[in-house]
Amino acid sequence: MTSRTPLSLLALGIALALPAHAYEGMWMPSQLPELAKPLREAGFEGDPASLADLTRPPLNAVVKVGGATGAFVSPDGLVLTNHHVAYGVIQYNSKPEKNLIDEGYTAADRASELPANPDYRVLVTVGFDRVTDQVLQAAQGKTGRAYYDAVEATNKRIVSECEQEAGMRCSVATMYYGADFYRIKQLELRDIRLVYAPPRAIGNYGDEIDNFMWPRHTGDFTLLRAYVGKDGKPAAYSPDNVPYRAPAHLQIATDGPKEGDFAMLAGYPGVTYRHRFASEFKERIEWGLPASVEVLNDLIDIVQQRGKTDPAAGVKYASQLSSLKNSSKRFSGELEGLRRSNAIQVRADAQQAMYAWLAKSGGDAKATRANIDQAQALLDGASAMRERDLLLNLLPLQTQLFKTALTAQRWAQERGKPDAQRESGYQDRDLALIEGQFKQVQRRYDAGMERALLTELLGRYQKLPDAQRLPEFDAAFGRDAASLAATLERVYSGTRLGDEATRLALLKADPATIQQSDDPLLALAAQLQPAFLRKEEQGKQREGDLLRLRPAYMQALMGYYRSQGRSIFPDANSTLRVSYGTVEALHPRDSVTYSPVTTVAGIVEKNTGVVPFDAPKPLLAAIAKGDFGSTADPVLKTQTVNFLTNLDTTGGNSGSPVLNARGELIGLNFDSNWESVSASWMFDPRYKRAVHVDMRYLRWLLAKVQPAPQLLKELNLPAE
Amino acid sequence: MTSRTPLSLLALGIALALPAHAYEGMWMPSQLPELAKPLREAGFEGDPASLADLTRPPLNAVVKVGGATGAFVSPDGLVLTNHHVAYGVIQYNSKPEKNLIDEGYTAADRASELPANPDYRVLVTVGFDRVTDQVLQAAQGKTGRAYYDAVEATNKRIVSECEQEAGMRCSVATMYYGADFYRIKQLELRDIRLVYAPPRAIGNYGDEIDNFMWPRHTGDFTLLRAYVGKDGKPAAYSPDNVPYRAPAHLQIATDGPKEGDFAMLAGYPGVTYRHRFASEFKERIEWGLPASVEVLNDLIDIVQQRGKTDPAAGVKYASQLSSLKNSSKRFSGELEGLRRSNAIQVRADAQQAMYAWLAKSGGDAKATRANIDQAQALLDGASAMRERDLLLNLLPLQTQLFKTALTAQRWAQERGKPDAQRESGYQDRDLALIEGQFKQVQRRYDAGMERALLTELLGRYQKLPDAQRLPEFDAAFGRDAASLAATLERVYSGTRLGDEATRLALLKADPATIQQSDDPLLALAAQLQPAFLRKEEQGKQREGDLLRLRPAYMQALMGYYRSQGRSIFPDANSTLRVSYGTVEALHPRDSVTYSPVTTVAGIVEKNTGVVPFDAPKPLLAAIAKGDFGSTADPVLKTQTVNFLTNLDTTGGNSGSPVLNARGELIGLNFDSNWESVSASWMFDPRYKRAVHVDMRYLRWLLAKVQPAPQLLKELNLPAE
Repeated sequence: MTSRTPLSLLALGIALALPAHAYEGMWMPSQLPELAKPLREAGFEGDPASLADLTRPPLNAVVKVGGATGAFVSPDGLVLTNHHVAYGVIQYNSKPEKNLIDEGYTAADRASELPANPDYRVLVTVGFDRVTDQVLQAAQGKTGRAYYDAVEATNKRIVSECEQEAGMRCSVATMYYGADFYRIKQLELRDIRLVYAPPRAIGNYGDEIDNFMWPRHTGDFTLLRAYVGKDGKPAAYSPDNVPYRAPAHLQIATDGPKEGDFAMLAGYPGVTYRHRFASEFKERIEWGLPASVEVLNDLIDIVQQRGKTDPAAGVKYASQLSSLKNSSKRFSGELEGLRRSNAIQVRADAQQAMYAWLAKSGGDAKATRANIDQAQALLDGASAMRERDLLLNLLPLQTQLFKTALTAQRWAQERGKPDAQRESGYQDRDLALIEGQFKQVQRRYDAGMERALLTELLGRYQKLPDAQRLPEFDAAFGRDAASLAATLERVYSGTRLGDEATRLALLKADPATIQQSDDPLLALAAQLQPAFLRKEEQGKQREGDLLRLRPAYMQALMGYYRSQGRSIFPDANSTLRVSYGTVEALHPRDSVTYSPVTTVAGIVEKNTGVVPFDAPKPLLAAIAKGDFGSTADPVLKTQTVNFLTNLDTTGGNSGSPVLNARGELIGLNFDSNWESVSASWMFDPRYKRAVHVDMRYLRWLLAKVQPAPQLLKELNLPAE
Repeated sequence: MTSRTPLSLLALGIALALPAHAYEGMWMPSQLPELAKPLREAGFEGDPASLADLTRPPLNAVVKVGGATGAFVSPDGLVLTNHHVAYGVIQYNSKPEKNLIDEGYTAADRASELPANPDYRVLVTVGFDRVTDQVLQAAQGKTGRAYYDAVEATNKRIVSECEQEAGMRCSVATMYYGADFYRIKQLELRDIRLVYAPPRAIGNYGDEIDNFMWPRHTGDFTLLRAYVGKDGKPAAYSPDNVPYRAPAHLQIATDGPKEGDFAMLAGYPGVTYRHRFASEFKERIEWGLPASVEVLNDLIDIVQQRGKTDPAAGVKYASQLSSLKNSSKRFSGELEGLRRSNAIQVRADAQQAMYAWLAKSGGDAKATRANIDQAQALLDGASAMRERDLLLNLLPLQTQLFKTALTAQRWAQERGKPDAQRESGYQDRDLALIEGQFKQVQRRYDAGMERALLTELLGRYQKLPDAQRLPEFDAAFGRDAASLAATLERVYSGTRLGDEATRLALLKADPATIQQSDDPLLALAAQLQPAFLRKEEQGKQREGDLLRLRPAYMQALMGYYRSQGRSIFPDANSTLRVSYGTVEALHPRDSVTYSPVTTVAGIVEKNTGVVPFDAPKPLLAAIAKGDFGSTADPVLKTQTVNFLTNLDTTGGNSGSPVLNARGELIGLNFDSNWESVSASWMFDPRYKRAVHVDMRYLRWLLAKVQPAPQLLKELNLPAE
């Protein structure tokens, strides 16, 4: 990492090849054997072949927890994940007189382990099978919407068949944008219990202020335990259930990481865009991100202003405000990072090199290029409606009652169809989720706030050029501010959807009743629905064609990579992936170096006594005492807290176990540094780092701060 | 610098001995021979004896420029100082159509060198003589005010005699709080010209945002030239004047600093409090700083609020607001730093150790301790009025017209006395300064703003306990908000001091006319004057006794230091001092390291194109070109900008030359890091750093960015 000159030149907009992306890659386990050489060069001491099958140890110890990741760490179903991933479980078990978020929790014995909210799940992947031929056969010869529907239908059938087996949750994962399909079969553990959680002031030390920041000092971990019926099969909570005998578990290491050490990580990264077209990078950077930040910041202003004059409304929108701010901050950071990495130029150059290689290749090269050009034309066409589409996407996302009405109309429309033919999200399996949303509205809705947000978004719509307008919207809201205000006044003063019972009744009501309802908001949703459906239909047409055509781009990329002796991983899609790399310092800017391991000294330095820097007294006392025993770092001579690696991660990797060269658990992934927010699009090895809890900190907390000797014993670890 | 554990413990309030203060010290040149051993250990290659006399080379190349420092760098009177020290000169030569602040300036030849504002001075120290016996003899046997007056009278006489010699400016410096006195004789060069200044976007790159910050990327330097009459004597500007033949000059080095290198610096540090009583540290930290920050922040709010509703007033108070903010920020930083260094405890422990040593010493130990105890009692007594004194000090500082009226009354009172007997600041030599202040009011006064500020300060006064109240103030303003408002309304609606001619006339008016003026503001000042004089008188009584008694504390400290084989330097007092140490990295907090040398990559990283990060296009182009020639760092392979040392500095050290082990000029001091704002009280070697312009950056700018080959030649440097 000596990048002083490249950095300055990059920032000046001068195109330069980035350093080799040595540790870029969210690899499918099956790809690891082909990476044996670089794995060993990075320091891995095990057999790469042992990592190839995610249904065998050690990868079958890695589980999906909520939308994130965790790992079995004992034979008795003990699961280690992040405090923030288990947050709902801790909150669910908190009472006003016993707030486990604030106090933390240690189950004295198994009987004291607290049941999670009933919808909380741990999924263990037990099958991962290629179904590409089956899926593509059905779609063969089709285009557009027909292609999309054929793939969807096959996928639904595969899922349905797979879920015939009791206790299984199945899905079909699309790899390489449609080049490959895999059926994923997961054991669905439904009785999950809280075993050990540090207090918020350890588990979320620094909170939003330190979020994305390094140096970090957060004990972001929690221990859960999965239970099953006496027959060993998944079951809902019952006091008679027994701990799940995990097929494999990870052993926490007794020594810790230091700069340069090998590290690897397994988890369920959500979504990346690394293999998108150069034009998509350009559009994201030049339009998508700046435009999103602009409209989000306007919405933030509205919520903040109204929240000041109407504090009760402010409270209801606190969560939405926080989410808006988080999105705006993330988008801004992503933009900053992509610019710093000169992403438009770098990606354009890489694509150009690939095309040059393709032009010289034999075989199907011409047909491949023709398909790529078709895909490019589709992408270019989609840009024509981008301003409108941004607003249409935000309407249901930023509203409560308006979204309810749209969902109710859609639900009414889909309900009449056989379950398998319904739109995803409106099948019977989705009903509980929709009901939850309808209930949640009660805590999050304020009429004045929703009208203000709609006035902003629809006001922006009214200013769009004619080519992007929708007749249904123009008919409903007119073309000026006065008519928009009049419509909103009429609709919101008349609607009865503010009442929870009324909303919930919609889920059982006769479709025609909903569609012909005289409730003005339901009627408005019915009036607008054709516009939303038309947009969806156009989207599916395009998606279908892209699903058909993008694989050409991916195949060209694969061939080009192969010609250079490099492997290529499919963009992340919430399936199990493995990253490897090293513990590495960060040079965020000129003259500044962040060492890759933090210590408890930083907790004391940051501590103000005020949330979120209000470390508990027992922690401060233990730090002052300096009694770190076997968990102290042998060189730093003090207790470490978090560490940094160059591993390739993204959202969904929360809770991913980090392993050392011998496959022992040394860390728990929980965040990225701010400089790598742009990594979902571009992995820049100068800045991309992942942030982990050092397992020695966990061990020390369990030994000295919030003692749990029974757990240290179960974890097969020294008592101190 | 391995301070992880000490830091955490310190922050917890646990008393620990700080690391040895290896490089603490603003030494009088005469002390350097006794420091020969540590100087050589630090890496100095010259003869320490050569540094003993500040009237001989190399120290006589170091000059006082404005309130700061500079150095001769050529035989022809070329002076190197900071851009911010020469700012007034650059501004004075700017015109709307030719803004030298924005554009920078390069004099093509001597004829193009631009005369500075006539009051701009460069002072060359030509005499430094101990006058302790003379001063103390006159004071012997006296106490309180009489002691103070005796010292003042002797000092004035010494100054007056010394200034008989044409072209000399003289002063008496008090060392060790009254243990020692020195007569300082300085040649007063009055024809100073602007030779070379980079544009603001180089010389002040980062401005307030980067002020006190590291990493830093500022080219904060300017070249001036001193001229004298044809007879070689100081003279006011004349086109016939000739360059001053400097008795010595510093040679700019051709190689640059790297971590661990020896460095030394000479300059005129303003004021430090390192040898104050432990109780003064405690009072500063527990009361003085927090109380000042609180009242300053209220004044900031007032100026900002009124500035919003009355933009014209806002513009007039922009400078005062900026100064208020700067003070509040500095005080907050000082408080933070002193707490981080656990200064109360550390100083109390050190004092206790000194007392323990004293108790075991023979000789005058008992008499010494008795004097110290008397001084302690005086200091404790002063605290009783601290809230009132803070407000009384702020009244003239934060007002324009109110201050004018107070000054006018005082001037009227002093004018009647023989010049030598007048209060300092009201002698004939001070008239030009007062006149300047009276003129300046015009640009900085707004009646509404001043009344709002007075309402705040006097409102606070009204809430003081009776013991701290002043009858004159109570009579003038009453004891409630209504009577205060009524007085201010009457005074400010009636005063004629808003008129510049009226103000200036006061300086020539008959004292009785002023004292009996019917102008309501002058009358108010006359009414309040006895209270201010009483406070001043009490202060002088105390100062006199402290001047008499503090030397006992210093002598005890000296003896204690001597017993440990250590030297002690007098607290800074704007006299020439030398610091030595090394180029050293900074570990500001856990896991963060700032390397001690920055590079041009940082300029590009910070550059937004918006002030203050709007590097000029030629600079960015030159960086992109990467043509650094002989000025590039041989290891970093790029152009350096600023560097960091552990040298002991404070305000007034701006423009101090930084020398390497061979006495060559490697840097120009211009700032400190934020973590060392508290260093005026406590030098904490973990955090204390000084920030310098790397002379290689100056050389590169003169060679490649804003070329001045004639100056490189005069500086005896390579052309590129």
